[in-house]
Amino acid sequence: MKINSNYKNLEESYLFSTIAKKVSDYMSFNPDAKVIRMGIGDVTRPLCKSVVTAFENAVKEQGELETFHGYGPEQGYTFLRERIKSYYQSYGVDINLSEIFISDGAKSDIGNILDLFDNENNILIPNPVYPVYCDTNKMSGREICFMNANIKNNFLPLPDYDKKADIIYLCSPNNPTGACYNREQLKQWVDYANKNEAIILYDAAYEAFINDSDIPRSIFEIEDAKKCAIEFCSLSKTAGFTGVRCGYTIVPNDLIREGMSLRKMWLRRQTTKFNGVSYPVQKAAEAVFTEKGQQECKKNIDVYMKNAKLISDTLTRLEIWHTGGKNSPYIWLKCPFGMTSWDFFDFLLETVGVVGTPGSGFGSNGEGFFRLTSFGTEQSTREAMTRIEKAIKEKRG
Amino acid sequence: MKINSNYKNLEESYLFSTIAKKVSDYMSFNPDAKVIRMGIGDVTRPLCKSVVTAFENAVKEQGELETFHGYGPEQGYTFLRERIKSYYQSYGVDINLSEIFISDGAKSDIGNILDLFDNENNILIPNPVYPVYCDTNKMSGREICFMNANIKNNFLPLPDYDKKADIIYLCSPNNPTGACYNREQLKQWVDYANKNEAIILYDAAYEAFINDSDIPRSIFEIEDAKKCAIEFCSLSKTAGFTGVRCGYTIVPNDLIREGMSLRKMWLRRQTTKFNGVSYPVQKAAEAVFTEKGQQECKKNIDVYMKNAKLISDTLTRLEIWHTGGKNSPYIWLKCPFGMTSWDFFDFLLETVGVVGTPGSGFGSNGEGFFRLTSFGTEQSTREAMTRIEKAIKEKRG
Repeated sequence: MKINSNYKNLEESYLFSTIAKKVSDYMSFNPDAKVIRMGIGDVTRPLCKSVVTAFENAVKEQGELETFHGYGPEQGYTFLRERIKSYYQSYGVDINLSEIFISDGAKSDIGNILDLFDNENNILIPNPVYPVYCDTNKMSGREICFMNANIKNNFLPLPDYDKKADIIYLCSPNNPTGACYNREQLKQWVDYANKNEAIILYDAAYEAFINDSDIPRSIFEIEDAKKCAIEFCSLSKTAGFTGVRCGYTIVPNDLIREGMSLRKMWLRRQTTKFNGVSYPVQKAAEAVFTEKGQQECKKNIDVYMKNAKLISDTLTRLEIWHTGGKNSPYIWLKCPFGMTSWDFFDFLLETVGVVGTPGSGFGSNGEGFFRLTSFGTEQSTREAMTRIEKAIKEKRG
Repeated sequence: MKINSNYKNLEESYLFSTIAKKVSDYMSFNPDAKVIRMGIGDVTRPLCKSVVTAFENAVKEQGELETFHGYGPEQGYTFLRERIKSYYQSYGVDINLSEIFISDGAKSDIGNILDLFDNENNILIPNPVYPVYCDTNKMSGREICFMNANIKNNFLPLPDYDKKADIIYLCSPNNPTGACYNREQLKQWVDYANKNEAIILYDAAYEAFINDSDIPRSIFEIEDAKKCAIEFCSLSKTAGFTGVRCGYTIVPNDLIREGMSLRKMWLRRQTTKFNGVSYPVQKAAEAVFTEKGQQECKKNIDVYMKNAKLISDTLTRLEIWHTGGKNSPYIWLKCPFGMTSWDFFDFLLETVGVVGTPGSGFGSNGEGFFRLTSFGTEQSTREAMTRIEKAIKEKRG
C-alpha cells in the first residue's frame, strides 16, 4: 500500500495554533484582561429573520410524508439556482441555469475542482494568499509559481506575459489583503488567460461587500470571461452561513479544453463524489436571495462595513499604510515601527490585548503586514481601535 | 492547460437515464397505468419527530446573537461524536472521539478518501458493485481488479491470497445484492488485509438494517480491523437523511502506513478541502442517536424491512433464487425464464408496470440478476408483489 507521498511534503500550518497559544499564555498572565479578537474570519451576526423562517419551514416539510424530500437534483434545486441566476442578472450578468452548481461552501469546490486538471499544469497563485490554494495543489504534487502582491502594485498583481500559467487563482475582494481588482485590471487577466488557454479560478466569496460600481462583483462581468473562468461563491460571509454551509460555483458552458466541456466534467465529478446540499439549507439559501432576505443580509453587512470603516479611519489618522476595508471585511496594514508581522502581533496583544493575524502567515510577501477583520461587534471594534490608537501614539511619544 | 485525461476514459452511465426513458415511453403509451417504482435507492418515510424538533431548535439558535454558531470544530461537534462513540459502544466497539469524522454523507468521503493514496496501488472491487467505487478510481487513472461475486459464493467473495490487493472495497450489507458478511468471513478479509498491509474501505451505509446477531454492524467488531480498515457510515437510510446529508467516517489511530497516520492525513485533507457539516444538521443527527430517536428511526426501518420480507416471501413462493432482504433493504434476484437483466426489466414494466433495476447496471456479474428495493410504501410494495406473482405464474402457465 502506497500513500500519497505529497502529504509528507505538506508543511504544518502553525499560524492559528501559534496565535491560540500566545493568546492563552497572555490570558493566564493577565487573567483580568479583556482580549478583543480581530483575527478570525468568522462572522458573528445571526442569520436574518426570513432565512430562519424559510429554514424552519423546510425542516417541518422533512417531517411530513407528503412534503418529505430525499435525494435532490444533481446540481441543486431549481428554486435556488433560479434565484442565483436572477441575482447575477441584477448586475447585468447572464448565467445559464445549467452553469450553476450548489455547493456546501466555496472551500470544498475550490479544492475539489483540481480533480479536473492534469498534475502537469503551471499553477499561478498570488503571494500572500488564502493558504488553501497552495495546500490543495501541494496535496496532488503540483508545482506552484507565485506572483508578487506588494505595496507597489497595491497587492493587485497583473499578468506577466513572459510567464506561461495554466491555472490562475484570483481572489477579489482578496483574502487576506482586502484589495479588489477593477474592471480594467480584471480584463487584463481574462485576456491573458484566453491568450494562453489558461483557466482562472475566481474566488468571489466576498463579493457581497463590494460597494464601488467600478469593482466587478463577478468575473463574468468581463467580456470573454466565460471562455476561461470558473467562479466560486459563498453565502458564508454574505449571509452568515459559516455554520450553515452553502455556496455556489459557476462553470460556464463555453469553457472547453481539449474538446471536453469542463461543466460536464464537473457535473460528473460532483455526481460521483458528492450528493448535494441539505434540502432545508437550500431553502434557507433561497431566502437569502429574496428581496426581503437581501435587505436583511445587507443590514448585517452594513454592521461589518461600519466596523471596517472605523478601522480604516483609525489607521488613516495614524498614517499607517493599509488597503481593503472599503469593499471588503478585511483590512491589511503595514506594521508600524518597521516591525515584523509577529512583532506587531506581540505588541498589540501585550500592550492592548488585541488579537489580529500576522501577514507572514499568508506567504512571504505578507511579512511586515497584518490583517484585521471587521466581523466583531461594533462595540468591540470601537474599543479595539481606541486601544490601538492610544498605544501607537504612546510608542511614537 | 491540460485536463485530467482520465475523464475521457469514463464511460457514461446510461443505467438510470435508460430506465427513465423506458418508463416515460411506457407511460406515454399507457397513460392510465399505475407504475410502481422499486428501482430507486431513496427513502420515502419522513424524518422522525425528535429529529425534526432538534433540527428546528438548532435553526432557531442560528437566528439569535447569543446562540449563533459559525464555523464548527474540524471533525464535527463533540456532542454528535460522543453520541456516535456511545452508539458503537452499544454493540461492544470502542472508538476514540478523535477517530470520528462527521461528513455530509458516505458518498463524499468514499470518493475523497482516495486523495490519501498513491495512484499506483492495486484496487480490488467486488463485481457487481455500487458504481461509485469504480468511477472514483477511474477518475484518478487507477487500474481496478475485480473479485467475482456470484451465486456460488452467495455474492460474498472471500480473499484470494494469490492476488495482492492494496485497497479493498467491501460493502456489507451490500448494495446492490443485499448480501452480508458474517464475523468469520469478515475476519478472513481483515487477516488478508493485515498480512498484505492493505487498506479495507468498508462501506457500512446499511448497518442499521442488520437484525441477525452473527452479522457485524461494524468492521471494528473484528479483531485487528483498526490496523487495516476505514469505515464509512451514513444516516441516509438509517434515519432518512438522503435529503438532509450527514454521515460519519471512522479512521482509526492505529492505521499507520509508511510511518504516516492515515487519521492525521484525513484530518489534513478535510481541514483543507472541506468546512464541516451544517450545525443544525449535526444537531438533527445528534437526535438520531438519542434513545427516543433510535426508537423512532427503528419504526421507519421496520416499515422497510416488512416490505423487504414481503418481497422475499413472494420470491420464495415463486421459487426464484434471491439474496438480501433480511438484513438489508435490497433484494437481489435471479431473473426467471433465463432472462437477461434488461429482458426482465422490460417484462416487469410492460406486463405489470413495476420498475426495478437491472443487475447488469452494477457490473458484468450482475447480468441475469435484478435489484428490488424495499423503500416504497407498504401498500405499493404489496400491490407490486401481487402483480409480479400473477404475471410470473401466468407466464409459467
